Amino acid sequence: MRLNEVGEFALIARLTDQLGIATTRPDVKLGIGDDAAALDLGGDHLLLATCDAQVEGRHFRRTVATPEEIGAKALAVNLSDIAAMGGEPLWALVSLLTPPTLDVSVLDGVYAGLRTQAQRYGVAIVGGNVASTDGPLTIDITLLGRCPRDRLITRGGAQPGDALLVTGTLGNGLAGLLAATTTERQRLAGVDDALLREAREAMVAPTPRAACGQALAATGMITAMLDLSDGLTGDLAHICERSNVGATIDAAALPVALAAQAIATALGRDPLGLALHGGDDYELLFTTRPAGIATAIAAARASGVEAHVIGVITEREAGMRLRASDGSERSLEPQSWDHLLGQ
Amino acid sequence: MRLNEVGEFALIARLTDQLGIATTRPDVKLGIGDDAAALDLGGDHLLLATCDAQVEGRHFRRTVATPEEIGAKALAVNLSDIAAMGGEPLWALVSLLTPPTLDVSVLDGVYAGLRTQAQRYGVAIVGGNVASTDGPLTIDITLLGRCPRDRLITRGGAQPGDALLVTGTLGNGLAGLLAATTTERQRLAGVDDALLREAREAMVAPTPRAACGQALAATGMITAMLDLSDGLTGDLAHICERSNVGATIDAAALPVALAAQAIATALGRDPLGLALHGGDDYELLFTTRPAGIATAIAAARASGVEAHVIGVITEREAGMRLRASDGSERSLEPQSWDHLLGQ
Repeated sequence: MRLNEVGEFALIARLTDQLGIATTRPDVKLGIGDDAAALDLGGDHLLLATCDAQVEGRHFRRTVATPEEIGAKALAVNLSDIAAMGGEPLWALVSLLTPPTLDVSVLDGVYAGLRTQAQRYGVAIVGGNVASTDGPLTIDITLLGRCPRDRLITRGGAQPGDALLVTGTLGNGLAGLLAATTTERQRLAGVDDALLREAREAMVAPTPRAACGQALAATGMITAMLDLSDGLTGDLAHICERSNVGATIDAAALPVALAAQAIATALGRDPLGLALHGGDDYELLFTTRPAGIATAIAAARASGVEAHVIGVITEREAGMRLRASDGSERSLEPQSWDHLLGQ
Repeated sequence: MRLNEVGEFALIARLTDQLGIATTRPDVKLGIGDDAAALDLGGDHLLLATCDAQVEGRHFRRTVATPEEIGAKALAVNLSDIAAMGGEPLWALVSLLTPPTLDVSVLDGVYAGLRTQAQRYGVAIVGGNVASTDGPLTIDITLLGRCPRDRLITRGGAQPGDALLVTGTLGNGLAGLLAATTTERQRLAGVDDALLREAREAMVAPTPRAACGQALAATGMITAMLDLSDGLTGDLAHICERSNVGATIDAAALPVALAAQAIATALGRDPLGLALHGGDDYELLFTTRPAGIATAIAAARASGVEAHVIGVITEREAGMRLRASDGSERSLEPQSWDHLLGQ
């Protein structure tokens, strides 16, 4: 069976579920299946480790993003994963796969973007690899970080009754992509330039919630957390599965980005759909006992980010549900972009 | 300028030299430029981190190696890097780039090979990534390990007068590749089947010197070490550059593999050339003060590997030299396969 018949998520489950169990060690505190692994090397901290690749034509287009933006985003998506563990980013390894015919100025730009981003977040680039390929330019980064050993936040700690919160706004990642790739550019003529720029920024230069993730973890009130890369419903499904819970989202409470609203409306799409299912937002989705809501929102704000309650964690049997503005409820199916299925 | 005009080694220098300096942190004990980075998370050990990618068509061919061998080798080349630091391998992250049309049975095989190899060396696979690509199948692995903090072995500690040693035999990595890809297969008709199998094994299923690297480090007598991936002269040049020394190799002392001798001779090539410049041998090249030679050889042997003195470290001004069997000497230019230049 070909991979494009299996699908990305089924493939990951097929390849890795057995692998993690077959090869574990006692010093693995958290293995495959979260935003980062948590590893025990002794000392006061746990080591966090994550990796993510950016592939030309899949994750970026050189007609849309500058080389500097491509390099910076390759690190940003990994910074977002460490943030989701409440961790502090420390060290990165950069593995480059490059066509031999590429102009070196492109790589100069990619590495300039990497360098600036690393400096911004206090990350040292400590190693890597350069290999040539007949395929597309690919930047594959492993980012290492740390968290206090008594403060590891996983996807698995949410409990029924917990509040569900998200940082920032939703929908701009996909809105930026739609605006950049639409074949009907004239439909965007009425959208404010500042909003188009904002959506483009969100897509090509996302801001990882690095300080916010650490600030939330420091409250000691967060029960589960991950970063939004596949889209709200797809990522919420990960929390539900790992925590063995359900969740109900309140549609009226979703912080849909103004740019996403404007672009979706101009292109004849439902803004709510972008917020629920659009990928690449790199916000933090987290849960806390009700008593922790005010503390969490204050901690996020102190780090420069607004956080909003968007729903509640329920019993597993209730599944994932969406409550509309009129109070009616419907079941919510997770939808994530599957790179292998192409849908 | 295109990358295939710049070359791999010049590109790495161009991209990374500035990067490491621009983004360092005090907890980076060893950054870009060795077999692995050494990082300080506190505790009794340093963390070691390395990454290496295997690209179809560049590093492996599915017409030559089985999926299981491809998976196992992807981990082996990284195990070899941790061994070269005298380190113990612990945790791996596997980043897969795969064409969506690939049959899933290929990946089942690759992951089976990875799993078996990880179990063999006590490594836990703790994370990774799966991305689709329009390019070739690529397995990019980051391997983490540890070494006692007072026993870090780099490429930079060799001193004039040190003995230069190598584990195992040389030349089989390239001999295996030549035998598998020659357009004149009939010339190999006279080569013993066992030797052809040995060379093939060396190419598709190299044995990382994991226990040996740790045993050598434990002697406290090793002044510099790295693993042979680019070829003896190319890798020795790294020791010379980092240690600011020269080196003279004694041609008669080189442990040229029997299979490499037989295959090179059959194909009309110089066996010495394979030993000096052939890549993919994954043996350890190391230096010790003369007083440590016997101890080092005994430690290697106790771990199941023979080590041989093949030369001596000299002053930098002497450069790299080769002493022939007749006592004559010539300058030795490092030659490494450059994947970007294709030569």
